[in-house]
Order: sequence, then structure tokens, then C-alpha cells
Amino acid sequence: LEGRNLGQISLLHIVHVFFFTQNVQYMFGVVGIPVIEIAMAAQAVGIKYIGMRNEQAIEACRLYSKFSARPNSLEAIPAIIEKAVRTSIYGRPGACYVDIPGDMVTSKVQESLLRTVPCCLPPPVAMADPQVVSQAALIIKNARRPLVLIGKGAAYSHAEYSIGKLVNLYGLPFLPTPMGKGVVPDNHPNCVSAARSRALLYADVILLLGARLNWMLHFGMTPRFHPDVQIIQVDLCAEELGNNVKPAAALLGDVNAVVEQLLDCLRANPWSYPSSSEWWVYLREKIKSNQEVSKALAAQKTLPMNYYTVFHNIQALLPEDCIIVSEGANTMDIGRTMLQNYLPRHRLDAGTFGTMGVGLGFAIAAAMIAKDHLPQQRVICVEGDSAFGFSGMEVETICRYNLTIIVIVVNNNGIYSGLDEDTWKEISKLGETSIVAPPISLLPNAHYEQVMGAFGGKGYFVQTPEELQKALSTCLADQEVPSLINVMIDPSSDRKTQDFVWLTRSNL
Amino acid sequence: LEGRNLGQISLLHIVHVFFFTQNVQYMFGVVGIPVIEIAMAAQAVGIKYIGMRNEQAIEACRLYSKFSARPNSLEAIPAIIEKAVRTSIYGRPGACYVDIPGDMVTSKVQESLLRTVPCCLPPPVAMADPQVVSQAALIIKNARRPLVLIGKGAAYSHAEYSIGKLVNLYGLPFLPTPMGKGVVPDNHPNCVSAARSRALLYADVILLLGARLNWMLHFGMTPRFHPDVQIIQVDLCAEELGNNVKPAAALLGDVNAVVEQLLDCLRANPWSYPSSSEWWVYLREKIKSNQEVSKALAAQKTLPMNYYTVFHNIQALLPEDCIIVSEGANTMDIGRTMLQNYLPRHRLDAGTFGTMGVGLGFAIAAAMIAKDHLPQQRVICVEGDSAFGFSGMEVETICRYNLTIIVIVVNNNGIYSGLDEDTWKEISKLGETSIVAPPISLLPNAHYEQVMGAFGGKGYFVQTPEELQKALSTCLADQEVPSLINVMIDPSSDRKTQDFVWLTRSNL
Amino acid sequence: LEGRNLGQISLLHIVHVFFFTQNVQYMFGVVGIPVIEIAMAAQAVGIKYIGMRNEQAIEACRLYSKFSARPNSLEAIPAIIEKAVRTSIYGRPGACYVDIPGDMVTSKVQESLLRTVPCCLPPPVAMADPQVVSQAALIIKNARRPLVLIGKGAAYSHAEYSIGKLVNLYGLPFLPTPMGKGVVPDNHPNCVSAARSRALLYADVILLLGARLNWMLHFGMTPRFHPDVQIIQVDLCAEELGNNVKPAAALLGDVNAVVEQLLDCLRANPWSYPSSSEWWVYLREKIKSNQEVSKALAAQKTLPMNYYTVFHNIQALLPEDCIIVSEGANTMDIGRTMLQNYLPRHRLDAGTFGTMGVGLGFAIAAAMIAKDHLPQQRVICVEGDSAFGFSGMEVETICRYNLTIIVIVVNNNGIYSGLDEDTWKEISKLGETSIVAPPISLLPNAHYEQVMGAFGGKGYFVQTPEELQKALSTCLADQEVPSLINVMIDPSSDRKTQDFVWLTRSNL
Amino acid sequence: LEGRNLGQISLLHIVHVFFFTQNVQYMFGVVGIPVIEIAMAAQAVGIKYIGMRNEQAIEACRLYSKFSARPNSLEAIPAIIEKAVRTSIYGRPGACYVDIPGDMVTSKVQESLLRTVPCCLPPPVAMADPQVVSQAALIIKNARRPLVLIGKGAAYSHAEYSIGKLVNLYGLPFLPTPMGKGVVPDNHPNCVSAARSRALLYADVILLLGARLNWMLHFGMTPRFHPDVQIIQVDLCAEELGNNVKPAAALLGDVNAVVEQLLDCLRANPWSYPSSSEWWVYLREKIKSNQEVSKALAAQKTLPMNYYTVFHNIQALLPEDCIIVSEGANTMDIGRTMLQNYLPRHRLDAGTFGTMGVGLGFAIAAAMIAKDHLPQQRVICVEGDSAFGFSGMEVETICRYNLTIIVIVVNNNGIYSGLDEDTWKEISKLGETSIVAPPISLLPNAHYEQVMGAFGGKGYFVQTPEELQKALSTCLADQEVPSLINVMIDPSSDRKTQDFVWLTRSNL
Repeated sequence: LEGRNLGQISLLHIVHVFFFTQNVQYMFGVVGIPVIEIAMAAQAVGIKYIGMRNEQAIEACRLYSKFSARPNSLEAIPAIIEKAVRTSIYGRPGACYVDIPGDMVTSKVQESLLRTVPCCLPPPVAMADPQVVSQAALIIKNARRPLVLIGKGAAYSHAEYSIGKLVNLYGLPFLPTPMGKGVVPDNHPNCVSAARSRALLYADVILLLGARLNWMLHFGMTPRFHPDVQIIQVDLCAEELGNNVKPAAALLGDVNAVVEQLLDCLRANPWSYPSSSEWWVYLREKIKSNQEVSKALAAQKTLPMNYYTVFHNIQALLPEDCIIVSEGANTMDIGRTMLQNYLPRHRLDAGTFGTMGVGLGFAIAAAMIAKDHLPQQRVICVEGDSAFGFSGMEVETICRYNLTIIVIVVNNNGIYSGLDEDTWKEISKLGETSIVAPPISLLPNAHYEQVMGAFGGKGYFVQTPEELQKALSTCLADQEVPSLINVMIDPSSDRKTQDFVWLTRSNL
Repeated sequence: LEGRNLGQISLLHIVHVFFFTQNVQYMFGVVGIPVIEIAMAAQAVGIKYIGMRNEQAIEACRLYSKFSARPNSLEAIPAIIEKAVRTSIYGRPGACYVDIPGDMVTSKVQESLLRTVPCCLPPPVAMADPQVVSQAALIIKNARRPLVLIGKGAAYSHAEYSIGKLVNLYGLPFLPTPMGKGVVPDNHPNCVSAARSRALLYADVILLLGARLNWMLHFGMTPRFHPDVQIIQVDLCAEELGNNVKPAAALLGDVNAVVEQLLDCLRANPWSYPSSSEWWVYLREKIKSNQEVSKALAAQKTLPMNYYTVFHNIQALLPEDCIIVSEGANTMDIGRTMLQNYLPRHRLDAGTFGTMGVGLGFAIAAAMIAKDHLPQQRVICVEGDSAFGFSGMEVETICRYNLTIIVIVVNNNGIYSGLDEDTWKEISKLGETSIVAPPISLLPNAHYEQVMGAFGGKGYFVQTPEELQKALSTCLADQEVPSLINVMIDPSSDRKTQDFVWLTRSNL
Repeated sequence: LEGRNLGQISLLHIVHVFFFTQNVQYMFGVVGIPVIEIAMAAQAVGIKYIGMRNEQAIEACRLYSKFSARPNSLEAIPAIIEKAVRTSIYGRPGACYVDIPGDMVTSKVQESLLRTVPCCLPPPVAMADPQVVSQAALIIKNARRPLVLIGKGAAYSHAEYSIGKLVNLYGLPFLPTPMGKGVVPDNHPNCVSAARSRALLYADVILLLGARLNWMLHFGMTPRFHPDVQIIQVDLCAEELGNNVKPAAALLGDVNAVVEQLLDCLRANPWSYPSSSEWWVYLREKIKSNQEVSKALAAQKTLPMNYYTVFHNIQALLPEDCIIVSEGANTMDIGRTMLQNYLPRHRLDAGTFGTMGVGLGFAIAAAMIAKDHLPQQRVICVEGDSAFGFSGMEVETICRYNLTIIVIVVNNNGIYSGLDEDTWKEISKLGETSIVAPPISLLPNAHYEQVMGAFGGKGYFVQTPEELQKALSTCLADQEVPSLINVMIDPSSDRKTQDFVWLTRSNL
Repeated sequence: LEGRNLGQISLLHIVHVFFFTQNVQYMFGVVGIPVIEIAMAAQAVGIKYIGMRNEQAIEACRLYSKFSARPNSLEAIPAIIEKAVRTSIYGRPGACYVDIPGDMVTSKVQESLLRTVPCCLPPPVAMADPQVVSQAALIIKNARRPLVLIGKGAAYSHAEYSIGKLVNLYGLPFLPTPMGKGVVPDNHPNCVSAARSRALLYADVILLLGARLNWMLHFGMTPRFHPDVQIIQVDLCAEELGNNVKPAAALLGDVNAVVEQLLDCLRANPWSYPSSSEWWVYLREKIKSNQEVSKALAAQKTLPMNYYTVFHNIQALLPEDCIIVSEGANTMDIGRTMLQNYLPRHRLDAGTFGTMGVGLGFAIAAAMIAKDHLPQQRVICVEGDSAFGFSGMEVETICRYNLTIIVIVVNNNGIYSGLDEDTWKEISKLGETSIVAPPISLLPNAHYEQVMGAFGGKGYFVQTPEELQKALSTCLADQEVPSLINVMIDPSSDRKTQDFVWLTRSNL
């Protein structure tokens, strides 16, 4: 590097150094000055650079970051990057934001001022207070209607082995949150997802493993939870304990470590929850009736298809080890119940804030990593048509890096629900669309698959179960090219569940 | 409205009231709760609602707003909306942000608490101190190498008549900024855009009309401006006066009003700047040589086309009254010099912050208004391929509202510049794209026109001048359907100008 | 300077340069690193440095500043300082905040990179649209119950001569806001301060000169203003026009310049408002009765004194050219009506936000400037006892710089109102003070004058009108030493006016 | 409460409820609307209200808070208060900020909407991974030059018993941070505070118990720490682990619990660190020589006194169980080494951010609690004269609540250092103080004790060791009245230590 003359070295050298020392293997960005120079320096040392098509306002990132900093000298960069990397993975994981001023690209620093900052240790693990563990074990044993609620914190802490043992040994019913799916396989006999509402409402003891009692779990409150429910809360974040509901026992620590502690405790005094209990009978009855309803819906032959038919057919074909990314309203919600996960950390959802537009980015990141580690593994990105509109141009990125993602757009011509083509034409005669069309309608029969085709991927427009099966089979068989299946459904299709109007997200 | 029972009225009623009283005719939004309810209420009273496909993070808006507020009661809404509307158009125009909490949609207020807030007066007009006007007139008269620099402030203040008179009566050379184009027609003989650099560098007196000396004008400093230049600054914002350069005269007031004052002053003592002056000779010589270079570039027959050939052919066909929206790097910059504006406020650019992704939104807004007021008027949206990626899905919005916008994507396979298809294939053999492809490359020959086709619009893929002429003629003749022309250009095409590397935007 | 060796110069040199070029003569600070070094550099070039005893959190300043910046290089400092100085005096005046990172004190910069930035021009002056001026003149002429409302904007624009002429020539009643006092002398026969409520409530036309219709003016609304009042608003800030009330005429421009325009307009068509009008009769009647009430209150012989007695005695002794600084609740409010200003810009109030703790700082700044320009001029700082508590330690600063400020603490043993010593003792017997004492009580008979004594100033504890007269006379005669008069008043003393409970400041 | 009529209840009722349910016993505030109403409601239910004299800008609090919220309805208050209380004590303790809009005081809510929110559980305790505990134990056993560094986290977790055992059983040298003082008594033979620099610099293994490696610990880096030091970091905050230095072992968990784990581990394999080791010899030698220097300084008979003499005399008289609050520069630093703590959580320092002005507030809070729980316990507040200036008016608060705090102002006539009276007079003759006095000088011989006298407390001005002893003895003997001892020291007195110029706080 020329910069080394005169004992000075440039930002690019620092970039090399810190990427090496911090083990960064992938870099995502939106091209612009000074990203180009940094991206090229990164590629030169073997870091993969993925250039995206859209970005959010830069200043805004700071608001949503766990840590943000702007180095005010070149020599401050290594320590700040280390802190950002470490903070993002220690404690509750979260994005960190480092803003490197553009004019640093051309500035230099004396080599002697640079300090090598080694990459951090793996995240530290904490365990719960043994006394509280004992209390918790006792509460579980005394439960008449127990429920294990598995959140994404369980997945992050790699607790699949310990939680699997807990469920298996003690016969407990469990329910995963969207990102907790797969920690125990969805097809496990103890999974009560199909009786979710009943399970939540009547459980008298809930073992909450790395899940937050936020709006997605109805804040743990009536009318969705039993007013006298005892919650055993396990979380690695002290400040999360007691949020919205006062727990019967608060276990601070790594989910996996704490479940192991619970297992030790339960082992001491052999016991298991009877599979013949009234609670199990009550739950199984509901599971059965719900599954029948779903099955009936899935089996409907009327066209356009409804959500259940679509997801039923998708589920039938997906490989067990695929990664499912999902965003949208009904698409994400119904997809959660219909698409099964068999492995942990194989599902990525829009998440807590319901932010739209992240799905394709998640899919691209997952596919990059899969490509390097499990080249046969497929990434399936299931999007509502409205959600797809937020970042649909990223299919060009998918094609550019030749990622064999399968994007499935579940298209109901609208947000929440739309209009069919005939109705649209009828009402368009009544006046300008901006006045007469419902605000939740999008253009009927939009051919999103052609957006994929525009960049060399394969697109499929499907309207029947048979077309869907055929298209998805073809995509799965093809290991070479990205594809998008645009699945037309009945615009008035909806989920079969109760109303959530009382829910607001103001209390997150 | 049911809400009126019991002397209470709901948010929706308030919405009705304030939209009526504040003269809001269009409403743009991204659908979600509670936008739906508000949008429907708005449509019910005749407001046009345009639902977009993407949004930026909500909290972030506050950072970039001239005024932001969150009403903490229903009865506070009318006054806050009035303030937002007024603040957005008084003084320097700017976006305002009102955040209406979701739970207000279902809340009610006693009618007696509501206060009707009338819509504000038109923006007030201020004039400059007559003494400083006299000084300024004297400086202009004594100028050896005068230049009038017309900014968007001149367009906002509707100063076309007065500035036209100033240029015509006194024979002064003028130069518009991007958004100042058309205040005086670009084809006016006194327009020196084709000698921009020379005009800026050698002018000894600059009359700056509603333009900011920011990075787009090189901060008014050497090496792009003469170190001894005297600047007569006219602006309606006191705090803008003196920014980056100390003016020889600072005229605080409405641009149009101040130019009228200058005209009065100059009229008192008849004078005009000689068209035979050395300065005019020097400028005309440069205009001629630059135009010859452009003409030669535009006439090149080699394929793929260069920027100049493309814009030359577009310019030849555009109607004089069309609205040109533009974003991108070279596309916007070269487009500014090659595409002529003949009317004020007919050009919309990405603007001061160079934010990408705003072009289609601008075009949609312009087309909605044109549709209501001048149905024959066309909106032409000229986008770089990279810029198009930020919000390309909005073509669905264009199709949904049947806006006959013509989107022209000037496609160089990349950001700043890309690779041709053969080179792309060659380097792809060397390794993974994420390692081997330059970060500024996009997928070669992306068929952006198919994105328009996906939603029922017409798409054209053009590679030669003839194809371009034919496609654009067809689009212009078609008053029914939106269209997109994807114009392939030489990925290594560039503008012919000097380097701007020394420019940073840090001093905005 | 050593720094100049090797073509490099230090921050201190830059400090010298920019203070010289920006005409900074005084510097206020709180000592700490790196303020010391900068303060010493400043003193070395003749800038006066005043070290204060307290500061607010630094990061917080940015929130309340008109402009804030943090230079990221030494060479950026001169331009940023120029911008801060200019922004603070152009348009509506406001504080600006420049945060110079501590480590810059020891860093260096190449001299060739430094750019001299000259000090800005005096603030530019704008005038109103002549047509709107004519309208406004007509409205004034047609007014049946006109009122001129003089705000601090009038004082800032040095409009005393023009407004004086307006009031004198046309016989108009006027009312100053606190900081507008003295633009026309308070003892002018047309001043209707003593009938403030009546004047505001019944005026049919109000000429609002540089005052904001904020909470201090009851937002210009009923029940304090007539519902049909026509407001002619004159302001240099476009965004202020129309705030809270839609004006009958909005005159954008410098207050002095616009009043001159009005005078020109009125002169064209001689007219004057009859001093025998019903309106004048009605106002004079109220002035008379109010003055009698005040006089009666002021004449009360009972002890402890009430507010009116105190201010009456102070007013009797104050020199006409003194500067009055004031803060507190009743102290500031009643003091406004009782203490007369004869000259513009001779009164400093806590202001729009009612921030407590600024009074002594204002007084110190005023006294520093007076010392240099009018050594005989006195600064009188009238403080409520609660307000004094916010920054009372600054009396040490007063003594340190030997500023002959007279601080008058109007002491009612509390906030809004307190308890007398006997009552305090009684209730203290009932339990712990923190439980039994009203939260608005302070310690009775606190000897604030001893705080001044602690630092070598003179302190007076006064309980009777005679003691007050004697103490104040002594202080005024003494040109050598700072003094503090602690005036005990009846803790239950209150102003005689109506209730303001309905007022909140939320609508500022 | 009247509000209960009609099934509605007011804010005041909510206040009652949440204070009761959240166990709030003390409330600090600055009087103003709506604090008065809330304070009175609080007092009515037995909460003690302490009204302070100064406040910082309200909006600013949010910047420095761990959690901040503004309820947007009355019914949201209980849950938000619970969250604020819980967040402030769970995880790393920190201030939380709830902003209750003023207009809520008069608003009402339907009783049926109110939800009772119980007070949270005591903070949850986490333990470290046993494997890492074993590693850590091994590192300690293998240490040649071990050091236990006790931070405030150790005090917060009530780890005095376990850490005492660790030090006693294994013979380890220890060093407390300012707020960690007293966890093990300062006069314990293993305390190496008197050899602080040597201990930090040469230790090869440091057991860091709840202390942060921030600027106060020189970021754990050379030249103050050994480059090869192995740090065993114990902290309850995951994100803190690895900050600035990569630890040899990172133990995530409650300090007390983790030390107990370490004790279990060490017990398994009996061992102790030899008191005859070279390291102990080396440390003791330094302790001895440093103590001799201190002793010599303390014994100096010259007047004015130096810091050591002052603190030596104070230390000799203070009761062992007193609470020491301290702020200032040298005063706090030297006081830390000279004033002994024998009990944990008996010392309050300005802390990490070095914020001045907090001392008296800390002292008032401590004294309120002491009064209720240990009425004989004394609070001693040792302030530099500059620090005292930030909030000196709070002595009125001390007197108002009759708190028998002893404030000791260590007065060197300045910040860092000042001038003696003669020098001050000399240089005052040279010109205006604001030009000629060093910016770090305050008024010489300021009689801060008179500030206490002004409010009925006792003040002492002391210049000799004998006067100091006599004054402090008198104060300690007096259980009735607050007092302030103003101790004059040599303005040029300084600590005996090395330079810290290289330290900046930018890396906190």
C-alpha cells in the first residue's frame, strides 16, 4: 500500500486490519461514496460484498441501534468496530451502527498510533439463581395446565437439545413463537400450535423461554391469557423480566443454561406430566378440530385459492432443512401456522416491529451463508404482495449474486385484502381510482413474477393448486436460477381467527 | 356519523373538517392502521388518496422536517394541521410532519371543544431595503463580467416575469440551477449553461437569485469561483444570507419582489450590458465549443450509445410543456445540460441532499396534479438504473392510478458505471460475484421495462437511437397507458467534465 | 507561537484569529478542560472572560439552539464560528452552540489550510409588501378600538423612533410586552398597561409589532381577546405569521422598516385617532381605577409589606436609565406593571419559556457591557426568592468581577407563596417537614443577603418601606460594591388579578 | 376523593395508587405546575416530599436515562411507573425518566379502565458459567502478582461478605474504586490503595469485580496497566464484558453470586497466596513510602494548610459509620485516598461522568434515609469550592428539612488552584479582573460558611488544624443543626501524583 510510505497508513489498511481481526466475512451496503472504496478494499482481502438496491435514511439508523458511534479519528476505528461487533452479539442481540465519515477514506494515520484490537470472546453465558430454579421446578410440577412457550431467545441460545429433553421427558405441551419455531420440531406430538388461543388462555403455568410478552403475545394479559396464570420467565436480559406481567419466578440467564438447570432439578425428583390429563385432552380436542377446519379449507376446490390451500400445497413440497423467510400480514400469520419448521434458526420473520420490506434482505443474507456452508440448502421467501412492494427491486440483487432463492408472493391484490379484476374494472368506471378504489386495494393480477423475469430469474404465475405444485417442484429441482412464484388467491380470503382490534403496538 | 350522537364526534369528523378547511386535495400514504380509516374518510369527502408501496422509518421523518408535532388530544389536531400546512409554505418551503397516534382513530371528543381553524393566508411577501437595492444596482452596473444565477427560490416565488425582464432589458448572461431551469427558457440566447464552468469561474459580479451556495454550487469558493467575485445575494431566508461567502450586498426578501425593486432602480438610470463586451465574446466562444463537443458526442454512431446521444434524441421529441423529473448521478447531471426547460417549475430533481429514490414519487405527484389541471401535459421521469432500484416498485402505483408517466431508465449496468455482458460473464468465471464483481456493477442488461410490463404498462428495451426515437414517439402519442423505456448505454460512458473529487457534502 | 514552527499552527492560534475576525469581546464559560486553555488564549488577545459557577448539561444545549455544530477538524472552525455568530443575529435572534472537542486543544493544523472568514454584515432588513401595508393602514384607520401591542421584536429592531412617532402622531393606545417595555416610555400618556386586560379584551384592531401570540399573550384567543379582533401582525419571521390567530393583515419584515412604511402610508391621508373616543374614555377609566387600587395597595401600612408597596418604593428610586432584569412568578409579573422602563432594551425577563435561573446571568452580562460603555449605568436584578435559589451562587461571580449590580430578592418564603415563621414552627411540630410543610414553602426568613455578604458584597435585610428606601438609596449611591437587598413580604401576598388556570404552555 | 363521583377518578388517585403499589417512600422535585399537586397528593399518603432549589432542563433528562417514557393516557401511568422503577434497579442500575404531561393533573379516567400493577420482584440474580469460573480460579492460583479490583458493582450486589472471605482466606491484595470503598474496609491489611499506581501497573492478574475499565481506570491500558495483564472480569452486564480490554475470563453474573462460585471452586483445592511473596514485599514497600510522604504532608505546620493536613484531621474525627459524599477535582481525588470507609455503600462520588453539582443532592437523599433508619448516622459532604458553586443554594434545602449534614468546603480559591488574597489584589490593579485574573481563580477567601448561616445553619471559617478539629468536633457533637466548615487551604496545594494529561474522557 502506498500509504505506508512515510510511516503513514490509510483507512484502507485499517479496513483490512479490522476486518481480519474482527472476522467479518460478509459486507452489505448500498453503493455510494465512500462505500465503493471500502467495498473494494474488503473484496481485496476476501470479504464478500453484497450491494443492495435500497437503503433507509442514514441518520435514522442511530435511533434503532443498540450502539452507535462515529469515530473522530482513524486510530479510533478498530476499538469502535470491536465494540460494535461485541455489543451486537453480547446480551440481547441487536444491530449496531458505525458511521465512518466520508473524508476518512483519503486521510492517513501514523502506523505507530494504531492499536490491534482482537476479536471478542464468544458471548458469555449466565445461569440463574439455583434457589429460584428450584421454585420454578416446583411450580411446574404443581401445574395443572402447564405450557412451555418457546421464543427466539431459545433459538439464539442454541437451547434445542435441552428444551427437547424437557418436552420429551416431562410430557409438556409447547408452543413456539414465530422465530422460536423449530427449536422443537413443529410436528412434535406435544406441539400445540394448532390450539394456540386455547393453550394461551387456559394455561395455569407458563414457562416462558426467551420470548417477550409484547403485542405478539398480547402482553401476557387478559382476555388472551388466564388472569391467574403463573409465568416462569427465563431471559438473558434483566430489564425484560417482569415486563407487562409480574412473573411467579424470574430466571435471569442464558436460556439453554437455565433449562439445563431446570432439568437437573426435575431429575432429582422423578415426575412427568400425564399425557392423559384433562388439559391434554382439552388441547388435543381443539388441535383436532382446528386441524380439520384447516384441512377443509386447504381442500377447497373453489378458485381463486384461499390461504390454506396455498400453504398446504407449499408445505407438502418444502424440504425439511429449508430456511423460511416471511413477511406480510395474513401471509406471515397464516404461514406461521401452516408452514412447518423442523430445525431451529430456520425461520426469519419481520419480527417485533412488524417492519415491512426486510424479507428479501433477510433471504439474501441467509442464502449467502447457505451457499458457503450448505450449498444444497434452499431459502424460501414467502411474501405478501404488499410486503413485496417495499423492496421488490432486490430480486435484481438476488439475480446478480445468483442466489437460488425461491420467492413466493401470495397475492391477494391488496393490503389485508383487495379486489378481483372485474370489481376493479367496475368501480374504475365510477371515477378516478384515487377516489373510488379502497385504499387497501392494489392493482389486481399484478404480474410480480415478471419482475423476476426482468433480471433473468424464472417467474411463475399460478392460479390453481396444480400449477402451484408444478411450479414449486420445478423451482426446488432447479439449483441454478432464482425464481418467483406469484400465487393468486381470493382477494377476500382471510384467516379464520378472532379479532385483534383491541391490540395496539403502543405498549411495545 | 354515529359519533355525533351524545354530542361527541370522532377523529373522522375532525379529519373531514380540517381537510376541508385546510384545502388539502391530495393525500399520499402507505397503507396500514390507522391510515386506512383516515384514507377512507378523506376519499369520502372528495380528497384523492394515493397509496404508495414504500415508506421510510416514521420516527426518522421528524429529523428532516421543518416542523413536527404529535397532537396529544383530538381537539388539538385542527390547530396543528393548520400550523403544519402554513409552516410548509411560509418562509423557505419544507416538509412538515404530524404524527397522529393510532388510538385516536377510535376515540371521541365533545363537539363543543372543537375550534374551527381557517386555512392560512397565501405566503407573505417581503421586500429588500431600498438602500441595499440601490447599492446592488450600482454593483451590477459596474460589473465587467456579470452573471445572473437563478435558483429554485426564484421558481418558488414565481419570478419568471421579472427575471425575464431583467435578462432581456439589460442583456445579462444567466445560468439556472437544476430546479431554477425554465424560469427563463433554457434556449434563451443569454443562457450560458453550456459554458457553466467558465461563467462561474470568471464572473466578477454574481446576482444570486434564490440559490444556495452549497456543494452543488461549490460553496461559492475557489477554485470554481473567482476569489474576488462580488455576490449580490437575494433570499427570503435571513439565515441563508452570507452562508459560505460574504456577499457584497445581501437582499432579504421575496425573489420576485426584490427583482422588481432592482428593475425599478435600474430603470431610473437607463443602462444595459453590452452584448459586444469581451465577457460575452468569451462566454459565447466557450458555449460554441462546448456545444460542438456535445453535438459530436450526440452524433456518435457507435453502439452502445453514450449519454449525449440518448439525451439528444430525447430532447428532440419532448413537448415544450412537459414536466421533467430526474434522479441519478450522471443521468441527472448530464440530463440537466441536455434536456431543455422552457417553463418554470417544470423540473424536479433529487435536490440538495442527493437523496435517491424520490424520483417516481415526484413523478406520481406531478402526474396527479397534471391530470386534474392540464390533462394533455406529460410527465417524463428520467432515472439512472441505480436510482430506479430504490423505488422501482412504484411503477405499480403508476399503473394502479393509470398515470401516463413515461419513465426513461438510462441503463449503464451500474452505479456511476458498470460492465458489459461479456465482461460480466468473463469475470463471473473467476469466482463468486460477491468477490469478483466491482461493487459498482449491477446485473448487465437488466430488463427494467418488464417491471412496467408486469403491471400492465408498456415497456421498451432500446439499444439504438432509432429504437429510442420510435419508442419515445409511441409513448408520447399514447395518452392511455404508462410506459417505461429502458435505454441501454455504454457502461463506460461518462460525462465530459472535470473532477469533483475535492467536493464533499459535509458543509451543506 | 511555538505551533508556527514547521508550518503548523495550533488551536490557540485559530482561537485568536476567529475571535478577532468575528468581533467577539466577551466570553462566558464554566471552567474545565479545555475551557481553561481557550479562556487564557482569549484573555491574551484582550477578550474578557467571565467564569460562571454553574452550567447546564452540555449535550442538552443542542436541543434549544437555533444552530449547533461540532467541527470535525481544526480548519473547519472559522467557518463554523462565523455561521454561529451570523445565525444568532440574523432572522429571529437565538442562541447557537458550537461544541469544540477537547482533544483539539493540543492538535495542530497546517497554516496553509486555514481560511480567513470575515465577520458577517449587520443583519439584513426586509420590508413588507406595500399593498398589504396599505390594507393595514386602512384597517387601522377604520378601527373603533385600536391597540398597538409592542413586543421584543420591536426592541430588537430598534423601532423606538418610528413607533414613538406612530403613537404620538395618531393618538393610538399602546401596550408593551415585558421585553417590549421602554420602546415607548412606560409613562407615556398613551400607555394602557394599567388597563391591560380591558385593552386586550375589547380592542377591535390590534397592531402586533414583533410580539408572539403565545401563552404570555393568551394565544390571542377568547376569553382574553375579542373573538372578532382583527390583528395586523408585523414580524420578521414568516413562519410566525398566523401562529394561533389568522391575521387580518400579515406584514413580513423588519418591525422598524414596516412601521416606517405604515407611517408613510398614513401620512398620505392625514388622520388621527380621537383622544375623546369612547374607547379612550373606557380605557382611561380603567387605568384610573386600577391605578387607584395599586396606589392603595402600595400605601398599605400593614407589615409584612405586600408586592405593591415594595415595587412602589423601588420604582420611586430607580434611575431612569437603569437596566432591570427580572425573574420569578409574581415578582416578575407584578414587577412588570409596577417598574417603569423609559428606554428600549433596558429590561431582561426570563422570557417565553419561563426558565428560572437565568436572571443573575443576564444581569452579569448586562453589567459587563454597561461597565465598558456607560460606567454610571446601574443594573437592578429583581428576583423572587425561589428564582434566586436556581443560581444564587453567581453572586460570587458578581463579586469576583466587582460588578455593582443591585440584586433585590422579593422574599415571600416560598414559591407562589410561603408561610410565615410562626406558622412554620407550628406545623413543624406536627411531624417531619417533608411530610407536613406545603411543597411550595421555603424556609421562612431566609437571609439571602448574607449570601452576598459571604463574598464581600453588601447585604440588607429589610422589612419596612423605610428600610427598603434606605437600603436602595445606599446601594444606588455606592458605585463600588455589589449589593443584595432581601425584602421580606407577606407570604400570602398575591397579585390582584384573575385566574390563569386555563392557560397551559403546551401550545407554545 | 371527589373524582370518584360518576365512576371517574383523577390523576391524584392514580398517584396514590401507584405510589402505594410501587413502594415509593421519597419524592424529590422542583416546585412548579404540576409538581405541586402531585407533591401534595404524595404527602397525603405519607410519602416524603423534598423540594430542591434547582433543576436541569427537562427534555435533557431523556438523554441520560436508561428508560424514558411519556404516558399518553392516565390509564397508562401505573404500568409505566412500574417499568421505570423496575428498569432502574434491574440489570445495571440507572435513572429512569417519566414525563407526566401537566394537563393530566386535571383530567379524569374511568375507574374500570385502571389496572393495578404490583411492585416488581427484587432484582434477579444470575450466576456465571461454572466452567469459566473454574478457568478463572486457575488463573488466580497461577498468578504471580494478583490484584482484586473492587468496583461499585460489588457494593450494589452486597458482595461484602463473599469478597471479604476471598481476600481473607486467600491473602489477596485488593484495591477499591471510589464507590467500591468499604466493601472491604479501607484499613484492612490487604488494601493497597496507598500503592495504587504500582499495584495497577505490575499486577499480572486482575480480578475485576463490578468495576468498569473506563477513564477512571485508565481504560485498563498501558502505560497504567501491564501490557500482558490477564483480567478476570465479573459484571452483571454482558455488554460491559470486554469493554476496552479483552478479558482472560469473562464472568457474566451478579458479583456476589459469582464470587461465591469462585470461593466454592477455590475451596475444593486448598491454596493461598503467600504473604511473603515478592509482590507483597514490593507493594508493602510502596505503601510504606507513600504513607510516609502523606504523613509528612499531613504533619506540615505551614499555613495555609495543604490537602493532606486537612484530610488527615478530618479522618481522625469521623465516625466509622458515617456516609461520605464527595465532589470536586483534587478534593475528591485526594479525599478518596485519605478518608477511610469501613462499610460498603457509605461513599457517594460524582462518579463516572465527573458531573459537578450533584454532591449536595446526594447528601440530602442520604440524610433523609439515614434520618428514618439510623438517626445517629452522620452524612459528611466534602466539596471543593468550585463544586460547591454548582448547587450551593441547596443548603437552604438542608436547613428547611433540618438535615444535620456536615458540609466541608475545601477552599483553594479556585478551580484546580486559585490565588491568595494578596496576589489577587496585586493583579487586580493591573486591569479588569475579567482580563487579568486566571480563569481558574475564584474570589479569594470566599466565606461559604455564611451561606449556611444565612439559613440558620452553623458556619465555621477555619484556617488552622486546630480550628478544623474544633469545628468538626462541635459539628459532630451537635445532633440538631446543619453545619458548614469552610476550610481555607493553600491555593497552590496539589496532590503529589503524576500527570493525567494524556487521559481524555472521549472513550467512556
